[in-house]
Amino acid sequence: MKSALSALGKRTVDPPISWLIQVALENPNLISLAAGFTDSQSLPVDEVQSAMARLARSKQKARQALQYGSTSGLLSLREFTTTTLASQDGKKSTSAVYDAGRMIISHGSQQFLYTLMEAVCDTEDIILVEDPSYFVFLGICQSHGVRCRGIRIEEDGIDLDSLERTLESLRQSGDLVRLKMLYLVTYFQNPSSYTTSLRKKQAALKMLGRYEKIAGHPIYLVEDAAYRDLQFTGEPVRSCLSLPRAKDRVVYSGTYSKPFATGLRLGFGLLPKALLPVLLRIKGNHDFGTAHLLQHLLMQAIESGSYQSHLPLLRERYAKKASVMDAAMKKCFPASVQWTRPQGGLYFWVKMPDEIKTGGKSPLFRRALAKEVLYVPGEFCYADDETRAKSDCEMRISFGSASLANIREGITRLGEVMHEVIRS
Amino acid sequence: MKSALSALGKRTVDPPISWLIQVALENPNLISLAAGFTDSQSLPVDEVQSAMARLARSKQKARQALQYGSTSGLLSLREFTTTTLASQDGKKSTSAVYDAGRMIISHGSQQFLYTLMEAVCDTEDIILVEDPSYFVFLGICQSHGVRCRGIRIEEDGIDLDSLERTLESLRQSGDLVRLKMLYLVTYFQNPSSYTTSLRKKQAALKMLGRYEKIAGHPIYLVEDAAYRDLQFTGEPVRSCLSLPRAKDRVVYSGTYSKPFATGLRLGFGLLPKALLPVLLRIKGNHDFGTAHLLQHLLMQAIESGSYQSHLPLLRERYAKKASVMDAAMKKCFPASVQWTRPQGGLYFWVKMPDEIKTGGKSPLFRRALAKEVLYVPGEFCYADDETRAKSDCEMRISFGSASLANIREGITRLGEVMHEVIRS
Repeated sequence: MKSALSALGKRTVDPPISWLIQVALENPNLISLAAGFTDSQSLPVDEVQSAMARLARSKQKARQALQYGSTSGLLSLREFTTTTLASQDGKKSTSAVYDAGRMIISHGSQQFLYTLMEAVCDTEDIILVEDPSYFVFLGICQSHGVRCRGIRIEEDGIDLDSLERTLESLRQSGDLVRLKMLYLVTYFQNPSSYTTSLRKKQAALKMLGRYEKIAGHPIYLVEDAAYRDLQFTGEPVRSCLSLPRAKDRVVYSGTYSKPFATGLRLGFGLLPKALLPVLLRIKGNHDFGTAHLLQHLLMQAIESGSYQSHLPLLRERYAKKASVMDAAMKKCFPASVQWTRPQGGLYFWVKMPDEIKTGGKSPLFRRALAKEVLYVPGEFCYADDETRAKSDCEMRISFGSASLANIREGITRLGEVMHEVIRS
Repeated sequence: MKSALSALGKRTVDPPISWLIQVALENPNLISLAAGFTDSQSLPVDEVQSAMARLARSKQKARQALQYGSTSGLLSLREFTTTTLASQDGKKSTSAVYDAGRMIISHGSQQFLYTLMEAVCDTEDIILVEDPSYFVFLGICQSHGVRCRGIRIEEDGIDLDSLERTLESLRQSGDLVRLKMLYLVTYFQNPSSYTTSLRKKQAALKMLGRYEKIAGHPIYLVEDAAYRDLQFTGEPVRSCLSLPRAKDRVVYSGTYSKPFATGLRLGFGLLPKALLPVLLRIKGNHDFGTAHLLQHLLMQAIESGSYQSHLPLLRERYAKKASVMDAAMKKCFPASVQWTRPQGGLYFWVKMPDEIKTGGKSPLFRRALAKEVLYVPGEFCYADDETRAKSDCEMRISFGSASLANIREGITRLGEVMHEVIRS
């Protein structure tokens, strides 16, 4: 008897990361520098408890929080979010771009990106992604049978020549009609930790505009700003929302999971009017709207100011962890190993010499595992794009969840393994 | 310029219920007997606040709750749920059917049903639904381009002859290969309030087994038990999980939204092994798993016993409301109007004489609106099944969210309108 699965059901494979999780579970003494978890010690227990107590002061409000909300989400939370975004971008909050009416609150930004994929992409459609990119997004593309084309990235974001070459090749092959969006993780990217400059954002949006005339439909610029609020040094960069045409062509996705608590699972998206009603309908079909209680709890933390006062402490903590990791890497890693110190986010992107492979079956990975230290092989972060080879000599190392002691010890072990492998 | 929407994006229309919500918003003085909301006054504010305080007693546990959880959900919550289900079915909790390892916790049972649809159904696949059925599920089918065939129901559940005739006609037309599931809302069904007898559950499962040999793949029986815990009178009925072959063919979906709080948005599903890994991967792509904090809060309420003590109070409250509504209907409705008093759930299903239409454009609906009382037209609850005409002389009336005073007043007005329309 055959299976009853749909095409999507058959296509949806285990993400490579679940293999890593399995490895970690089987080796409980392992120091994991692989997990993208946030720092446990800094999770806002007191803030959430106070938020609950504050909420319960008004029986009526607490009851509202325990009832269904609207599909788009709590208006006050959407208003706070758009006002914050406008202020971060140096714009007036009355601007039509930063309009709470264009926003949906979701169960993590992931769910927002998922519904976006459903609304816009058919099987065989094409999405341009950074090379490397966020592997869970790549998994969603794969599940939906959507083809990804990787665009080279540099320290200040995508390589515009690589973007233009790819658009040109899609034009020549007649595939522009299948191109639906360019997906960029613009702040302290997962995994590279690179931040896209405003100049490059503007140039990319302009370039998409030129090609969409041939495509015959909008090509959206999707800005995933998941790590924006975790900036601990350097100048802030404005979002794509601040650019001309943003209102109709930029989809902005953000989250409260990283700056507050992953266990609250709150994200959001800001959408062009042409997409908003469709995503609302799809979100309604998923769950009628995000759990009302979570939104009310976050809003209480915001109204009391505890959300705002927690954020700088969090940034300070990550700055410290990044600095400790950087120092340990300088001390322990071979001179031929390269990385850039991130200005925010949770990750270091480490490049080995070209001849040293980092993949799950490589001697480096296996020796690291034998020494009980885990990293994410860089190859997991590259889309299945048959027009170019995947790079396989990089690794993503996170300072998010490990303690300072484990960061030092993990990097020491990893350094020993690197020396061994390079020597042999 | 064309839109960039996917086929699903183009297909997904506003559900009829959103039109009703709009009508309600535009008429703030309206008494809504339409909304499927639960009773606001009985929402467990104290219980949730205590759960939060209890959780925060252990900083470590509270931090866990604010961190990512697993994709399948909190093990203790899954174990409590399967143990409860086994006990409700008079079975041992060690049975392989009631195995927490087969369960996924979701953002409402709706999200579970959504991921099930994604895993199993392609466009043009077929699902058998009750006639009438839960309109949000029908909307999910429509969005996915899945065809529904309506099966007649009676007071004790689906009409087995109607089921067999439909299966036979699918066999003859060669469409059995597209048939993926039979979807039943088995307890105090939304909208009819009927409960499916165990005898009919068993006969239906057996019948599907006969036809799946011709289909060449499993045909699942999906039991949506959303209202099971809201039973306030009558004998409890065992679920399909208690039947032979359940482990491989029954998908069971349930919720904590109705018995506890819709604002917590917690549901669950129990799955055959052939579907479990696929749904876990899809759920992972949606959101990595249900908000951990919500699951921990519910689990605290369960461990303290406050969940269990809240439930009988809730049932008592709904019993009272149903009884007040029934008495008002007996007093105010014309003799030619028919209904059955429900033994649980949130709804009355009211049948007008055949010549009296109840649809959104009918004189009855418009006159009711003019008197500021709202119901759900029965036609909204019938699938788009071109092989039969939709019934359009019924209405769904809910005693869930309206106060006792509003129930009495709403029914009085509705009765006046019915008398007027029948007279004219």
